[in-house]
Amino acid sequence: MSALEKIAGRAEPGTLYGIGVGPGDIRYLTLRGAGLLRSVNVIAYFAKRGRAGNARTIVAPLLDENCRQLKFEYPYTDEITVADPAYRDAISAFYAETASQIAEALGRGHSVGLLAEGDPFFYSSFMHMWHRLEGDFPVEVVPGVTGMSGCWTRANVPITWGDDILSVLPGTLPEDALAQRLTACDAAVIMKVGRNLAKVRRAVEMAGLLDRAIYVERGTMAAERIVPLREQGDRTGPYFAMILIPGEGRRL
Amino acid sequence: MSALEKIAGRAEPGTLYGIGVGPGDIRYLTLRGAGLLRSVNVIAYFAKRGRAGNARTIVAPLLDENCRQLKFEYPYTDEITVADPAYRDAISAFYAETASQIAEALGRGHSVGLLAEGDPFFYSSFMHMWHRLEGDFPVEVVPGVTGMSGCWTRANVPITWGDDILSVLPGTLPEDALAQRLTACDAAVIMKVGRNLAKVRRAVEMAGLLDRAIYVERGTMAAERIVPLREQGDRTGPYFAMILIPGEGRRL
Repeated sequence: MSALEKIAGRAEPGTLYGIGVGPGDIRYLTLRGAGLLRSVNVIAYFAKRGRAGNARTIVAPLLDENCRQLKFEYPYTDEITVADPAYRDAISAFYAETASQIAEALGRGHSVGLLAEGDPFFYSSFMHMWHRLEGDFPVEVVPGVTGMSGCWTRANVPITWGDDILSVLPGTLPEDALAQRLTACDAAVIMKVGRNLAKVRRAVEMAGLLDRAIYVERGTMAAERIVPLREQGDRTGPYFAMILIPGEGRRL
Repeated sequence: MSALEKIAGRAEPGTLYGIGVGPGDIRYLTLRGAGLLRSVNVIAYFAKRGRAGNARTIVAPLLDENCRQLKFEYPYTDEITVADPAYRDAISAFYAETASQIAEALGRGHSVGLLAEGDPFFYSSFMHMWHRLEGDFPVEVVPGVTGMSGCWTRANVPITWGDDILSVLPGTLPEDALAQRLTACDAAVIMKVGRNLAKVRRAVEMAGLLDRAIYVERGTMAAERIVPLREQGDRTGPYFAMILIPGEGRRL
């Protein structure tokens, strides 16, 4: 066994692993994540309907073909808003069913690795499974490099210097609220930009930050796109597109 | 070569690598970070005076004993405040000298891996070297799992749900400003708590968040300590201690 494999370790029976797979480039997977991916009995992952699933695509080079795979297709992603009661009902039923399938595998003594893009405890669907299962089964969460770290790395901008305040803001916020929050921090990451791009761009402009804003789509992945927000215009990008406003704090 | 080593890759001559070593547990190092650690000609790292250096200690199990090591001891860490002109002068001279030593190694065609705790573009000293050297030499930055991800993982709390706003706040902020920022977000991480603990605790209490606040010291490391902030009292901890205020957003 190589030194890396020894550190990475292996899965234990009947345990749920929340595996942060990082921002996209498989080189940014952790050693622990790699060790688990290659030793769990079951790989479970979420995917948009009819798609391969981002997290699953990221780790494909390391998966054992004989490993059982549980694919969970969201009833919705961003086709309707979360304020719609139909969304809440459908997604709650979906998560309940998903959790019961995972519980069934765990109950039979299988180890299950549930993939999470980025870090499992940072805006992930894994949390909805953790919430339902962690009292009943052993759970290990493996932190991952967040999508935002991958994005600022590839954009080649340090995000926070010295005593900068960083705000992580969802692009779903109303325009005025977003602009107000942007003026109250030194550095910002706006998540879930996707269909909210035009509104988000207006908020960034209102906050006087358009010159510093960088648009990043699929950071660290093959189809990565990084441009000044000014150049992106209002072209709608993928749900996970981000806008970075790098801090300008203390440089020594 | 194992599958993991193949993905991890190796260092190129004359290149500066900013290697995010993650929060503390070496299992949370990335594959790319591991590949570089074991193939660079020179490992460079910062340390508090007379100490081994946190980042260097984290990666010790993977270092090649024959690798050249450049240790840079800070003239100060938190003994005097950054507002003191003596601090600025001493630290600027220190970084200039450090950069020239790294440049000298790069100029001779050596690959240099400069270690950064957590993620290199998130409040790290690496940024001060990047800033000085990136125009003159090839540089690759390898993102890492942040210290805060390590802390919320070990505290076993998802930090952000749904559309939660996360603020990352330095514990150096004045008490009132800190309290005001805390009330304007859904989830928060307070960094650099160390000697600021008593003030930070008062600010958290003022914001009505004491019941939700978790104190984490040396998260993911052997001497890890995780307690409700209420129990920690005002006992001063290490510089990198953190306080987490988990979000309570949308659970589905």
